[in-house]
Amino acid sequence: MSPANMYQPMGYILDLGGKRVRPLLTLIACDLFNGTIQHALPSAMAVELFHNFSLIHDDILDKAPLRRANPTVHEKWNTDIAILSGDGMLVKAYDVLAQSQQQHIGYLLPLFSKTGMEVCEGQQMDMDFETQEKVSVEAYIQMITYKTAVLLGCSLQMGAICANTSYQTQQHVYEFGKHIGIAFQLLDDVLDVFAENENFGKQIGGDIIANKKTYLLLKALELANPAQLQQLQALCQMPNSLKDEKVKQVTALYLALNVKELALNEANKHTSIALQHLQEIEADEVKKDHLKAFALQLLNRNK
Amino acid sequence: MSPANMYQPMGYILDLGGKRVRPLLTLIACDLFNGTIQHALPSAMAVELFHNFSLIHDDILDKAPLRRANPTVHEKWNTDIAILSGDGMLVKAYDVLAQSQQQHIGYLLPLFSKTGMEVCEGQQMDMDFETQEKVSVEAYIQMITYKTAVLLGCSLQMGAICANTSYQTQQHVYEFGKHIGIAFQLLDDVLDVFAENENFGKQIGGDIIANKKTYLLLKALELANPAQLQQLQALCQMPNSLKDEKVKQVTALYLALNVKELALNEANKHTSIALQHLQEIEADEVKKDHLKAFALQLLNRNK
Repeated sequence: MSPANMYQPMGYILDLGGKRVRPLLTLIACDLFNGTIQHALPSAMAVELFHNFSLIHDDILDKAPLRRANPTVHEKWNTDIAILSGDGMLVKAYDVLAQSQQQHIGYLLPLFSKTGMEVCEGQQMDMDFETQEKVSVEAYIQMITYKTAVLLGCSLQMGAICANTSYQTQQHVYEFGKHIGIAFQLLDDVLDVFAENENFGKQIGGDIIANKKTYLLLKALELANPAQLQQLQALCQMPNSLKDEKVKQVTALYLALNVKELALNEANKHTSIALQHLQEIEADEVKKDHLKAFALQLLNRNK
Repeated sequence: MSPANMYQPMGYILDLGGKRVRPLLTLIACDLFNGTIQHALPSAMAVELFHNFSLIHDDILDKAPLRRANPTVHEKWNTDIAILSGDGMLVKAYDVLAQSQQQHIGYLLPLFSKTGMEVCEGQQMDMDFETQEKVSVEAYIQMITYKTAVLLGCSLQMGAICANTSYQTQQHVYEFGKHIGIAFQLLDDVLDVFAENENFGKQIGGDIIANKKTYLLLKALELANPAQLQQLQALCQMPNSLKDEKVKQVTALYLALNVKELALNEANKHTSIALQHLQEIEADEVKKDHLKAFALQLLNRNK
């Protein structure tokens, strides 16, 4: 497709793969409510395109050199091309969405755009946190909800819309996805520090080295006594040459302050809320069990 | 609105003003076909938001320091914020569009997205031209059609859709806007070199200094004899310190090769095509005359 400098990066990032969690959720939700799978295909494609658009642009903002072990678009081409092919991908997401059944578009479009705004807001909040001295745990949960979780809820709700489900049922499936997403991100924070095997695929303690304001760090700052607070602040300023020591000492502080447990509890709380919403849904119990199993599998990457 | 770093730049660029040509076209088209103006307001806002999104991102790509005599978003804030607030503005355009009447959304959305893809493609073509040695006049017309003209056609067609007009009539009003847009851009190329008064508001010869591949330059390269071609290529490599001399000599070559007249003829050709499409439209003749006068006024900025 032409111009190649716009379409090749779009094909490139899509070809890097990924688990395709979001489009799967859309199709699963459509099937859960006995919808016609074909009617949900435009929504499924749209959420995956939106997700990949956000990856291209987030990688620019994060100055990330690698995405799925390959050069990011702005590294392989340049930032201008990454901006424009990301824009094209976002428009393409809506272009594909427009191929939905006429009777669904009026419901899909407001949901997709509301979610899109929230994802942008979440990304901006995340950027703002970097320079903000004090970030509350509540603000952090709000940030991950917008940046990560709402797109999972949206993916499911779009499938439900394409199956002509009631608004109330749509809300339950949305909340299910959203709370699974919050739990997923909280567990991701824990795994970054406490992953026990090689399956995690990232550097252990990467967030600690980067002073990333995760649930663990924010909770530790909240709970630390004056001496611990001083120690934590000193550790955050440790030079990169001592990063192994930094990871070791921060991890020890996290354990002393019990923030790993608190993060797991918080994740479990959101998983429970998610499962309560699933329970409220009237649908084939076997299909519901499959969706539940799929979600729990996402959460249990390290076990 | 929060986060401020995302919403303030969006408000900032909208507050810089501009002629609001695109939303006006949407509302005029809706009125032309006796539609309810209120039904076209979401479309009018969506096209203006889309236009401003593209300005924010194009200014990054063009490294433009100023927009309407004020700092561009990436200069006033930074590139990361400009990327993200542009993204937010694009999503917001769709979010506003979703507030259209349910019966119109299925027609507005595919048109808006097709146009959005074309605008991105046009911007990429323009970037590609910078490093391309040979660019045909046809490719140039294609580029300005996508980058500038189709959004004018889209603005009008959206108004027509909101007035429940037939598809055939929509096509005529779209083509009217598209060809006015092509003529507008061709005249812009001419004005850059030959503007006769101070109303143009830009530096005379700016395109020549930047070696921008305009209709005039491409046509001159096409028509030049070997000696003129050599002269033109030498002029393109003249250092910036001699820019006044460069503008003077390139302008003289343009006059010798008659490319100003050719550009004006090409612009007139597209204006005529536009007016033929307007003639095909069945509507109140007084209203049609107002639309015609509005379009011709856009084209006659220098007279």
